[in-house]
Amino acid sequence: MENDRSKILTESVKRLLRRNALSTLRKIVNKSHAADLSAVFSYLPLADQHKLFNLLDDSESRGDMFSYLGEDHLMAFIQDMSTEEIVEVLENVPTDDVADILGRLPADQADAILQKMKKEGSEEVEGLLSYGDDTAGGIMVPDFIAMGENITAQDAIASLQKEYKDVEMPFYLYVVNEDGKLVGVSSLRQLVVVPPGTRLNELMATDVFYVQTDMDQEEVAKIVARYDLLAVPVVDDHHRLVGIVTVDDVIDIFRQEATEDILKMAGVGDEFIETQSVLRSTRIRFPWLFASVMGGVLAFFIIGRFEESINKMTFLAAFIPVIMGMGGNIGTQSSTIVVRGLATGRLNTRDIWVVVSKELSVGLILGLIYGTLVGAVAQMQHSIAMLSLAVGLAVISSMAIAALVGSFIPMAFARVNIDPAVATGPFVTTAIDIISVFFYFKIATTLLGI
Amino acid sequence: MENDRSKILTESVKRLLRRNALSTLRKIVNKSHAADLSAVFSYLPLADQHKLFNLLDDSESRGDMFSYLGEDHLMAFIQDMSTEEIVEVLENVPTDDVADILGRLPADQADAILQKMKKEGSEEVEGLLSYGDDTAGGIMVPDFIAMGENITAQDAIASLQKEYKDVEMPFYLYVVNEDGKLVGVSSLRQLVVVPPGTRLNELMATDVFYVQTDMDQEEVAKIVARYDLLAVPVVDDHHRLVGIVTVDDVIDIFRQEATEDILKMAGVGDEFIETQSVLRSTRIRFPWLFASVMGGVLAFFIIGRFEESINKMTFLAAFIPVIMGMGGNIGTQSSTIVVRGLATGRLNTRDIWVVVSKELSVGLILGLIYGTLVGAVAQMQHSIAMLSLAVGLAVISSMAIAALVGSFIPMAFARVNIDPAVATGPFVTTAIDIISVFFYFKIATTLLGI
Repeated sequence: MENDRSKILTESVKRLLRRNALSTLRKIVNKSHAADLSAVFSYLPLADQHKLFNLLDDSESRGDMFSYLGEDHLMAFIQDMSTEEIVEVLENVPTDDVADILGRLPADQADAILQKMKKEGSEEVEGLLSYGDDTAGGIMVPDFIAMGENITAQDAIASLQKEYKDVEMPFYLYVVNEDGKLVGVSSLRQLVVVPPGTRLNELMATDVFYVQTDMDQEEVAKIVARYDLLAVPVVDDHHRLVGIVTVDDVIDIFRQEATEDILKMAGVGDEFIETQSVLRSTRIRFPWLFASVMGGVLAFFIIGRFEESINKMTFLAAFIPVIMGMGGNIGTQSSTIVVRGLATGRLNTRDIWVVVSKELSVGLILGLIYGTLVGAVAQMQHSIAMLSLAVGLAVISSMAIAALVGSFIPMAFARVNIDPAVATGPFVTTAIDIISVFFYFKIATTLLGI
Repeated sequence: MENDRSKILTESVKRLLRRNALSTLRKIVNKSHAADLSAVFSYLPLADQHKLFNLLDDSESRGDMFSYLGEDHLMAFIQDMSTEEIVEVLENVPTDDVADILGRLPADQADAILQKMKKEGSEEVEGLLSYGDDTAGGIMVPDFIAMGENITAQDAIASLQKEYKDVEMPFYLYVVNEDGKLVGVSSLRQLVVVPPGTRLNELMATDVFYVQTDMDQEEVAKIVARYDLLAVPVVDDHHRLVGIVTVDDVIDIFRQEATEDILKMAGVGDEFIETQSVLRSTRIRFPWLFASVMGGVLAFFIIGRFEESINKMTFLAAFIPVIMGMGGNIGTQSSTIVVRGLATGRLNTRDIWVVVSKELSVGLILGLIYGTLVGAVAQMQHSIAMLSLAVGLAVISSMAIAALVGSFIPMAFARVNIDPAVATGPFVTTAIDIISVFFYFKIATTLLGI
């Protein structure tokens, strides 16, 4: 349904642009949800993007566009705007998004914009920018409902009607003491069902889940998910309430972190930037492939030492791919399971021996099955019992050791606080390549006496 | 913070169990959040799990435990309970969770439980069970706030205080007409700020995002994420409101789908079941490895045809690992990027030619770099110019073709609606193995005239 909506809208917009049907475009553009419109932008040249943007009537919609445009599209879009124009749109963008955007611009441009913003707005943004990007402080919204503990339910409701009319996510009502410290939480629904004169500190829940400003965003996301919250309050060192992290941002964090892990495991960097240039993509992928070529070169030297044996029995070479391939694939399976298990909390570094022994068992069983299969193929082709046995044993040892190594390495890395997703790939691949090849030739030359 | 809380609680509970300090345990268990307690369960033997469970004083907490215990733990836990005991707990479990649980039990046990449940509850559950597991109907909660369009704001608030006192997520108020069809949406906050006599159909928003009962859960999740909703209403064929999907379930769906994709790409099935037996794990991983061994065996036959050439120049064999390895790794990078890009909506099948040509370019550049490197190693070791050239060219062609194949195959699969995550692995790996080996020997034998 999402793709169809997007597709239909994109086609309509493109058609109307070709015909320069501006008044129809204006209607469509003002009727569309910002999320849908921003999807269309990615299919249009910059000039058309600006044309559409300028057809938006109210400043709130323009602000929304800035929030919904993906990072790379937004950066390109902004280039063609003057500082004043940018500031004007940013007035209608939530503070945390403004901080995000400014954080990605060159420092001088960001400063110029901050200068021109109204003092109150720029102070809030600068406050947010002072926190690390991927921390609770960096992702929080300073836009929340907080009231004093002695206020009555009746006055609280009245306050919501006046003061907090435009708050984005008004579900939780945080209760603070005179010093601004977080002491409890309530909700609009609670206010509505209690006697009007009840004080907040009589009806609030006091064991509030909260996070500190310096907590890693992934940890924050896990807390929101674990306890089914809609938002989690963020406090500073003095336990003063300074912001909230809302569930919609948490969804984005999980998707981001999943993408990050997936890309890291394949050695493709940690960010998905589809407009990334060929050169940049090349540069990002170079290191991981370098570790891989090291493994290949080492394998080359190992095989080189067995040159005489290959001379005597040339078909030994034909089995290299299948033995390495089986080892490599099962090793990838093991490391994928462990890395993902650790990431989702399903596995814990405490489980290291249970997991590794289980993987070893699986490696042995599958190695036995496939070792027999490949050994049978060898026997059919060459009818040399010792060769078939050697090939079969090589497959078994390659797969068993690969499963062992593939599960052990990420666990070990996690134990010493190294990100298993990024470190595992090259180490596991290289180790398995070398081990498989070495064991193969050692077993083969021993059994065949060459 | 999460791990520490869990760890501390687990250690305390274990210690108290050893000392059989039941009254202290009772206090702790009734103070803890169900999510934290369920994490502890996974470290205790079944007998202790039941001991703790029976220390829970109120039925609501027991119901919460059922919702938070992971699937496999819950199934094991339930085995030791009588049907009556299970039914009693289920009375306090949200209907959608009850449906999930019953859906996983053997049919006869599920039926026995449904029989014993109060008619009203079991009807609701059976209704949910009639929908496919991974559809909107299968994950929705039938627990929502819906009111007639002619009701006034004042009466709506009163209704919330009485009728809807226990609704879990009371943020959106859905407005229905006499036939129960969804016509608009509002919120408690809106009710509070408008004049009390306003009718719902005067203040509601009419362009409501909604989904049909048969929509795939992943599509539902994407809609909730895209438009920053807290819940999305689910309608049946007649546009009658039958349930809602809440944002906390959406978070779980995203994590689940990410895990699914990650595991599928490595050929490890699509579910993460950590207590999975060795045999089950073996059985799940067997097919993907089978496709892989097919590629290896084919490579074996291809190399077999070049036996004579290897006889003449044995060190040809030593380069097989590095050439295949480089191809395999860059192919994995390309397919990972495409599969994840498609999954997150960053890439679209429309982009197929842009993406494939970009990947081909990256493959050529990296191939050139590494081809030169490996060719240099060959030259240092053997000083045979033609060999070094052949090896270098083989690396370039292997990597370029791998990037091409690695990006093309998932795109093509997605185009014809085959899940790229599961199909890509074996096809890409096998194709690259065979192509790399074939091109290598063809190039080498041609250049070296053997």
